[in-house]
Amino acid sequence: MEQMMRLLHYCGLPEEDVDFVNSDGKTMNKILMEANPRMTLFTGSSRIAEKLAVDLNGRVKLEDAGFDWKILGPDVGEADYVAWVCDQDAYACSGQKCSAQSILFMHENWAATPLLSKLKELAERRKLEDLTVGPVLTVTTEAMLDHVNKLLKIPGAKLLFGGKPLENHSIPSIYGAVKPTAVYVPLDEILKHGNYELVTKEIFGPFQVVTEYKKSQLSMVLEALERMHAHLTAAVVSNDPLFLQEVIGQSVNGTTYAGLRARTTGAPQNHWFGPAGDPRGAGIGTPEAIKLVWSCHREIIYDIGPVLQLWEIPPST
Amino acid sequence: MEQMMRLLHYCGLPEEDVDFVNSDGKTMNKILMEANPRMTLFTGSSRIAEKLAVDLNGRVKLEDAGFDWKILGPDVGEADYVAWVCDQDAYACSGQKCSAQSILFMHENWAATPLLSKLKELAERRKLEDLTVGPVLTVTTEAMLDHVNKLLKIPGAKLLFGGKPLENHSIPSIYGAVKPTAVYVPLDEILKHGNYELVTKEIFGPFQVVTEYKKSQLSMVLEALERMHAHLTAAVVSNDPLFLQEVIGQSVNGTTYAGLRARTTGAPQNHWFGPAGDPRGAGIGTPEAIKLVWSCHREIIYDIGPVLQLWEIPPST
Amino acid sequence: MEQMMRLLHYCGLPEEDVDFVNSDGKTMNKILMEANPRMTLFTGSSRIAEKLAVDLNGRVKLEDAGFDWKILGPDVGEADYVAWVCDQDAYACSGQKCSAQSILFMHENWAATPLLSKLKELAERRKLEDLTVGPVLTVTTEAMLDHVNKLLKIPGAKLLFGGKPLENHSIPSIYGAVKPTAVYVPLDEILKHGNYELVTKEIFGPFQVVTEYKKSQLSMVLEALERMHAHLTAAVVSNDPLFLQEVIGQSVNGTTYAGLRARTTGAPQNHWFGPAGDPRGAGIGTPEAIKLVWSCHREIIYDIGPVLQLWEIPPST
Amino acid sequence: MEQMMRLLHYCGLPEEDVDFVNSDGKTMNKILMEANPRMTLFTGSSRIAEKLAVDLNGRVKLEDAGFDWKILGPDVGEADYVAWVCDQDAYACSGQKCSAQSILFMHENWAATPLLSKLKELAERRKLEDLTVGPVLTVTTEAMLDHVNKLLKIPGAKLLFGGKPLENHSIPSIYGAVKPTAVYVPLDEILKHGNYELVTKEIFGPFQVVTEYKKSQLSMVLEALERMHAHLTAAVVSNDPLFLQEVIGQSVNGTTYAGLRARTTGAPQNHWFGPAGDPRGAGIGTPEAIKLVWSCHREIIYDIGPVLQLWEIPPST
Repeated sequence: MEQMMRLLHYCGLPEEDVDFVNSDGKTMNKILMEANPRMTLFTGSSRIAEKLAVDLNGRVKLEDAGFDWKILGPDVGEADYVAWVCDQDAYACSGQKCSAQSILFMHENWAATPLLSKLKELAERRKLEDLTVGPVLTVTTEAMLDHVNKLLKIPGAKLLFGGKPLENHSIPSIYGAVKPTAVYVPLDEILKHGNYELVTKEIFGPFQVVTEYKKSQLSMVLEALERMHAHLTAAVVSNDPLFLQEVIGQSVNGTTYAGLRARTTGAPQNHWFGPAGDPRGAGIGTPEAIKLVWSCHREIIYDIGPVLQLWEIPPST
Repeated sequence: MEQMMRLLHYCGLPEEDVDFVNSDGKTMNKILMEANPRMTLFTGSSRIAEKLAVDLNGRVKLEDAGFDWKILGPDVGEADYVAWVCDQDAYACSGQKCSAQSILFMHENWAATPLLSKLKELAERRKLEDLTVGPVLTVTTEAMLDHVNKLLKIPGAKLLFGGKPLENHSIPSIYGAVKPTAVYVPLDEILKHGNYELVTKEIFGPFQVVTEYKKSQLSMVLEALERMHAHLTAAVVSNDPLFLQEVIGQSVNGTTYAGLRARTTGAPQNHWFGPAGDPRGAGIGTPEAIKLVWSCHREIIYDIGPVLQLWEIPPST
Repeated sequence: MEQMMRLLHYCGLPEEDVDFVNSDGKTMNKILMEANPRMTLFTGSSRIAEKLAVDLNGRVKLEDAGFDWKILGPDVGEADYVAWVCDQDAYACSGQKCSAQSILFMHENWAATPLLSKLKELAERRKLEDLTVGPVLTVTTEAMLDHVNKLLKIPGAKLLFGGKPLENHSIPSIYGAVKPTAVYVPLDEILKHGNYELVTKEIFGPFQVVTEYKKSQLSMVLEALERMHAHLTAAVVSNDPLFLQEVIGQSVNGTTYAGLRARTTGAPQNHWFGPAGDPRGAGIGTPEAIKLVWSCHREIIYDIGPVLQLWEIPPST
Repeated sequence: MEQMMRLLHYCGLPEEDVDFVNSDGKTMNKILMEANPRMTLFTGSSRIAEKLAVDLNGRVKLEDAGFDWKILGPDVGEADYVAWVCDQDAYACSGQKCSAQSILFMHENWAATPLLSKLKELAERRKLEDLTVGPVLTVTTEAMLDHVNKLLKIPGAKLLFGGKPLENHSIPSIYGAVKPTAVYVPLDEILKHGNYELVTKEIFGPFQVVTEYKKSQLSMVLEALERMHAHLTAAVVSNDPLFLQEVIGQSVNGTTYAGLRARTTGAPQNHWFGPAGDPRGAGIGTPEAIKLVWSCHREIIYDIGPVLQLWEIPPST
């Protein structure tokens, strides 16, 4: 980034237009508090986002974390493709993407297919050698396995695959190193208080929760979505327009992929990317996003006349 | 308002869609804190606006107070019309409008005309009998006269007109009752620290500050605008496009009227009304305003396929 | 209409803004030729539309006739609803609508259902007494039956229902009076030269052609659509997004309804209505339509300066 | 152009997407008549434009010739700049631009300045050696001088400068070679029938008409504009917003420059360029222009349901 800015300066862009600051969060927070900027776009964790919203009196736009969900609808199809997208969404970059798939809701029709075994197969072909798994920067191995174990104590929960540390590596213990992991938790257990907060905790690593719903349980799935706090990305994997209509119409995530090829992350096209359902929500990636985040409406009303020749001063009001 | 809602219900609108609460601010604040709404549009004073921004973690849109300015440009014209608009902007509704004219910057060309005496004449034809002056709800007579006296202590300041209590009335002393008042303060004094905060204090009553600038002092005027906090409405009274370009280009107020007929308040057309320069700024009055305040961008990306027939699972990444 | 204009005048609208002329086409054509208007919006038959396009040197917008098609896709569903919409699209107002369904392409999956017998049933409950059938203003009984007979000479063609004059009525013979009629013509025969022109002749009365296609024959259906001249409305009755994508992507009709509830006429919402695929195509019914038909782009570029102080006259070029 | 297309093909663009035809107009007309294209964008002379509009039944968009006007308003200023722009607008590229300044209306305030002598000076510094004048491709020397002589017979007309053939050159006589020329014609003479057609004849070479108007004669100027046929570009040289409002509001040219720096041709920004006031008018140069010329509105209305469970077939209508 610094080199990019040097290039821009070399090309003649004004040096005083950008301040580029490398610092820890504490220092940057102090700078912001003193500078009192008119607008701050923050991209990072929900925790710091909420702190900044208060520190800066709400003069913020937030592109924060996401516990991103994917729903597989009733129409089973393109199973290999769907499995591959699930694997990539959850485990590419070792799951270290704000748009990573954190929970997968499978319709019973999908549960009756070999989808889970395909997911397992795809997860298990990942390995350190080709960096298809790798170190996790912000969550330790211990913390991740501890989270897995807590989940496994929920009645009906079971380990689908993974759940073990990576072996034969030199990743320092301040980082995380676990195999791509999925834990199944029954839908009715997810909705219980206590469980819900645990299940929807975002783990910034190669980890996801998987659950299953029957046709009659769609409203429970929708309730689970509604109770989440960060609404970044989502996917509704279905080509059934009535199903899409129902799920999209009752959820609020920002960047929502719909259709049999839907993913939670890394779509090919250049689209708006950001959360929804929050007046502080920022978008990045399109002209509209730039306009909405970095600009604001100003209305200039020209009233040049002429004043009518016969006009006279009217009474006061 | 309550009767309007009863009418809506009578017409069949769903009763559960609106909660209508009459309360003092403290109670409403408590309700908001407990309900934790996704979005709150607040219209009222800057002080409460800032409190709510923090209380609600920035999930607010604000259409708050304004210390609204008007600049008379170098091209003198339509003097009667301009004087009448000034009088209405400052004193109609006894100045109790968030868009009232709070300060008037006169170009020296205007100062050389009888404009000030016209303003005085128009202000003095206002009287209690026809309610062209009236009680001030939120500032007492004492507080207003006290403010006038403080301003008059600034070197060079002078009372242009008003500055006296209304007489022969039965307005209770918890309200304000003063004659339409204008105080002249020299531009260089306005810019001095200490003076500036005093001069730009919003008085929600029939009161304005008047000052004058020479052609060479436009940058001082622009500095005065820049240092203000609330940027609701503004007027640039000029048909000189180069002057308009300079002032509009270097200021940030939301609803800005430009042209010889410019006003700070109550334009005939239905336009966006709201502050600018703040990501929390709300607008009211147009479809765009409603969309920006009450909605947010959500991006649905349909990716229905088909998947290419020759597609095969690619390597993990 | 005349009374409406009198009301407008009574309300104060300027009398000189509208000329309202009742006349036969020949007279109106003469008026247009002499007045040489900057723009003429014509709504009526394709034949007159083409004449006007030449007479007025192309300064026209046309909202002309349509031989409107409906395609039933592979996903059978809501059969009663679909049948009812087909009946209404083809025979409501005795088929005298520019958006009437003129040809129905049934997927073989629909052909295997009782759809045709439902259509027959619905058509046969129509009767003169309640005006669900009625006189045809511009095509005589003889002309319609003659058209039916010509179609029936095509190999494989058969009468599905109707094809007989109405009985026990006093409709003068200069009008048409036939029972709601449908003729089946095989798809491959439709595409043959000679047949094609006959089959796609618009009959402005209660008449439609019905045909069937197999999954493998969709490209033949698309070819039939492509060869049509007027592209007003169309319907693709399917909730299969891949099917919709293929048909919509390869056709060009203006107002195209898509989905299991699709119709060719009279949708509940207020939308743009007009043909597509022709630079002369007019739209009616939305602000965008009004703007596109009755206005045109004009670009005003303000270049007010200032001229740089150091500017000097450069060399000629 | 051909080489550009070869480059595109080399880069992989499909060869069958563009047909590139070099031919005379007669051949191209025959091709168009036989191909019967859905849309033709024509850029060229009004005469051929009108022929094509009929030949192609109005399926055309026209970006045709212009007899482009410039009005100097009452506010004299930046005289050197304005003179230089006039010289360039009329004589750069030897006036061979569809946007060349063909007639100049000077307000009497400008007539009282040395503007005309500045124009003469600038025109006379143009010379063959540096190609600031050059051969005219489509009008011969004789035709241009003949036109000048006809104009000079109008009462009050006079030659301002030019009006002579270029000397010492080897330009073949099938081309034109004249000095930059301006002829003054009184405004009231311009408006007379017979004169008007002569004065507003477009000469695609280094030639312009100049006239003068008094404040009270603005309506005559506006009448002259209204009677013109091609409305391509125009300039209103004034920073007086009331004057701009009046002239722009009562004229219809497509690309209209406004302000003291206004020109008729070659503005620095990339804007829509095209005529207005004609439904066939084409624009070039912006995304909106491309959309309006090469595309058309198509409305897809999705009506996927669901059908209400309690729905029953209603009566026919």
